[in-house]
Amino acid sequence: MNPDLKGNAIVNSELNVKSEYQWQHKHLLGIEGLDAEDVRFLLKTALSFESVSTRSVKKVPALRGRVVVNLFFEDSTRTRASFNLAASRLSADVLDFSAKASSASKGETLSDTVRTIEAMGIDAIVCRHSLSGAAVQIAKSVKCSVVNAGDGQHAHPTQALLDAYTIAKRKGLTDTFDFTGLKVAIVGDIAHSRVARSNIKCLQKLGAEVILVGPPMLVPSTFEALGCRISHRLDEVLPEVDVVNMLRVQFERLESQAFASKREYAAFYGLTEEKMKLAKNDLLVMHPGPMNRGLEIESPVADGPNSAVLEQVANGLAVRMATLFLVTGVNDA
Amino acid sequence: MNPDLKGNAIVNSELNVKSEYQWQHKHLLGIEGLDAEDVRFLLKTALSFESVSTRSVKKVPALRGRVVVNLFFEDSTRTRASFNLAASRLSADVLDFSAKASSASKGETLSDTVRTIEAMGIDAIVCRHSLSGAAVQIAKSVKCSVVNAGDGQHAHPTQALLDAYTIAKRKGLTDTFDFTGLKVAIVGDIAHSRVARSNIKCLQKLGAEVILVGPPMLVPSTFEALGCRISHRLDEVLPEVDVVNMLRVQFERLESQAFASKREYAAFYGLTEEKMKLAKNDLLVMHPGPMNRGLEIESPVADGPNSAVLEQVANGLAVRMATLFLVTGVNDA
Amino acid sequence: MNPDLKGNAIVNSELNVKSEYQWQHKHLLGIEGLDAEDVRFLLKTALSFESVSTRSVKKVPALRGRVVVNLFFEDSTRTRASFNLAASRLSADVLDFSAKASSASKGETLSDTVRTIEAMGIDAIVCRHSLSGAAVQIAKSVKCSVVNAGDGQHAHPTQALLDAYTIAKRKGLTDTFDFTGLKVAIVGDIAHSRVARSNIKCLQKLGAEVILVGPPMLVPSTFEALGCRISHRLDEVLPEVDVVNMLRVQFERLESQAFASKREYAAFYGLTEEKMKLAKNDLLVMHPGPMNRGLEIESPVADGPNSAVLEQVANGLAVRMATLFLVTGVNDA
Repeated sequence: MNPDLKGNAIVNSELNVKSEYQWQHKHLLGIEGLDAEDVRFLLKTALSFESVSTRSVKKVPALRGRVVVNLFFEDSTRTRASFNLAASRLSADVLDFSAKASSASKGETLSDTVRTIEAMGIDAIVCRHSLSGAAVQIAKSVKCSVVNAGDGQHAHPTQALLDAYTIAKRKGLTDTFDFTGLKVAIVGDIAHSRVARSNIKCLQKLGAEVILVGPPMLVPSTFEALGCRISHRLDEVLPEVDVVNMLRVQFERLESQAFASKREYAAFYGLTEEKMKLAKNDLLVMHPGPMNRGLEIESPVADGPNSAVLEQVANGLAVRMATLFLVTGVNDA
Repeated sequence: MNPDLKGNAIVNSELNVKSEYQWQHKHLLGIEGLDAEDVRFLLKTALSFESVSTRSVKKVPALRGRVVVNLFFEDSTRTRASFNLAASRLSADVLDFSAKASSASKGETLSDTVRTIEAMGIDAIVCRHSLSGAAVQIAKSVKCSVVNAGDGQHAHPTQALLDAYTIAKRKGLTDTFDFTGLKVAIVGDIAHSRVARSNIKCLQKLGAEVILVGPPMLVPSTFEALGCRISHRLDEVLPEVDVVNMLRVQFERLESQAFASKREYAAFYGLTEEKMKLAKNDLLVMHPGPMNRGLEIESPVADGPNSAVLEQVANGLAVRMATLFLVTGVNDA
Repeated sequence: MNPDLKGNAIVNSELNVKSEYQWQHKHLLGIEGLDAEDVRFLLKTALSFESVSTRSVKKVPALRGRVVVNLFFEDSTRTRASFNLAASRLSADVLDFSAKASSASKGETLSDTVRTIEAMGIDAIVCRHSLSGAAVQIAKSVKCSVVNAGDGQHAHPTQALLDAYTIAKRKGLTDTFDFTGLKVAIVGDIAHSRVARSNIKCLQKLGAEVILVGPPMLVPSTFEALGCRISHRLDEVLPEVDVVNMLRVQFERLESQAFASKREYAAFYGLTEEKMKLAKNDLLVMHPGPMNRGLEIESPVADGPNSAVLEQVANGLAVRMATLFLVTGVNDA
């Protein structure tokens, strides 16, 4: 599962990125392929890109003439848009390849589909797929860079990286990106969540302690093997944590498998104004979106001063710009 | 409903736009938010952009590095394409955000959807929605510019502006954009038409007299309150008007609510070759498209010398370039 | 059916294209409109564009500020992506016009749809349509350039050109693009295939002999009128040919009209490892994609050294860049 190509050191004075580390991979398939220094180097690179999105001219020439293909087999306007804009902001050309209407539906294999795309002269494929492991399979089929934008329940590494970036910004940790001593709760349907899996790995690499919170059906004890504490009581966990990441609830799954009703879920695991009274004053509240207001999070909390929900979206641009920049290894030549 | 931000004076020698007036808003939500001088200033700005679309290099750098999102909750390839090309022609980056596949379908609120998009670093949102008032609601949710590309039965301001622009070009009124003395008939389903509503306001602001023509069910007498004359006889109105704007008929609505048959509608309110004999020689014939040939307009009229149907499309580019240029206030910085 | 406008000679030192011939048309509607020298000139122009797709900066400024519209009434991500990237690589702006969601579904005529698009200031329309003759009809409606990306069972000229280009590259014929003495078998459902029809014409113009192979229902004897040999035995034809082009089988049509089962088709007309033993060592194997592995072609053959399947895709970019460059006649001004 390890990517097979080594990237070069990044030295790009224009972007004010100093190369202290080697970026190890030409792909970003999951957090497990990165060590702590890789993660920190990517997050520091993102810092240097952050200001691009707030300028009037939102462009740097870093990937001019490069081509990024968004290959989404699952619908996702939010993540797709974020990658599309990140690539445009680096001056790359972007092609949205609608996989539903594609040859995949004509019986073509995934490998043939991606090798065909690659043959058109592509620098990076950003892929989302409903099957865990799809990104790895794609990376094995092509020589261009592959970025996993979510594969089944396996991984969503750029979400984890932008969440870590958001924590560092809010907690004043962007000098070191060292999360030692920080306690982060991830709340909701952990069992089926790629966001949770990637977040756990990323936060642990950076030194944080991770607590998983949710009903037993959705937070099975097997997750202790990942080095996480498990709790089925949000009210008990809230007082001690520095960050809480509220996962989106999938209605269908929730009602059939785990809980009597939305109302009951909201009462036990929803982040309400009432429950916020139990928390530290500076509790950082995150949500990967889209939010079910009134279910896993109440509006006053989502829109309150502790919430970083929109900052997560903004930070996603910087993190994805850094990702595309690093995996395509523009300094190789 | 009034937009809350003031734009700056436009001084852009490159584009040969002289700043005689202040452009009052950072949004274009409806004609009602503009005064006559605002409308005229936008139309004059459009004049300076018109030639861009006929050059071989169809580009000016006015919005280089700016980002425009097309957020269409209703299908519309025509208007969407026009805005997309207008933005590209100004060198902006354009992202088509397919709202059908979007988080909106996952229970996300409209406000959350647009604030998420804005957080990605966006300069303007061009939106279309089936609900009247949606554009205003979006403008209240975000700080970036919002352009209404059609909301329910409420407004379609750029259509009204391009129609006014087309009249001025054809009638030799581009020096003043003063329509005093001009009589314009709008024919068809006025009651349900955002095009009609925006046209009425725009034409009246420029000084024209507006006559609404159609069957009583589709042109109720309440519209007299807008200062329009109402008629149920196209043949009676045709001899006196300088311009006729034939609205597209919605088959379904027509047959269920108002008329016995398409044939009967065409006989009474269709613009036929026969009826054209009643009109002034230089009657200007317009249609917002797509046309139902043989229903509200006969082919020889649609394709004849009086028709400005394709010019309307071409002028739409210039008007939308001016709109995007003015609302984003590129000279603010 | 002949296009009506003459292009100018191409003199573009930057691209290293020497103008030995006149490019005759502003459209590319079918191979029948080209003579042998037109075809060869286009293929030579493609040679000069080929390297662009393998550079890190995949851009030439040839069509900067030009606008290409992809107007696809039939789904096709592969061909659409190829044209999209080809246009981007020439620095043109590309607009994907989704015809399914378009005004066409509101009763607008094809002619009105394309004249509306043209009125927005367009340099070229790339169109695909399920009706034979649609591209010609579109070309008659507009003054801009039209490129046929597939119309019904009639023609798919850029596929034929990229196939010819691939043969020339593999057989060392890029000096002359003279295919005299070359035998090419096209295998499969010839009767319903626009790829076959365009390939037959293109290969014959360049001097090759074409043999059509397939079951009698799918390769009727009427095709002899095109100057082709017909065979119903792939095993008999394989030993003598230099190139074999395996068409994609349409499951539905196959089973209802022509054959007892997929298995039987594969046994008779599939290109298997076993059958490859009958062929010349340097047999060139092509397939327009997407492939049905195990049906018309076995995986070891598709992925083997004789196969040019991915090269066809890559060459498609160069051929489509040349096509867009030549039809838009950038040197006219």
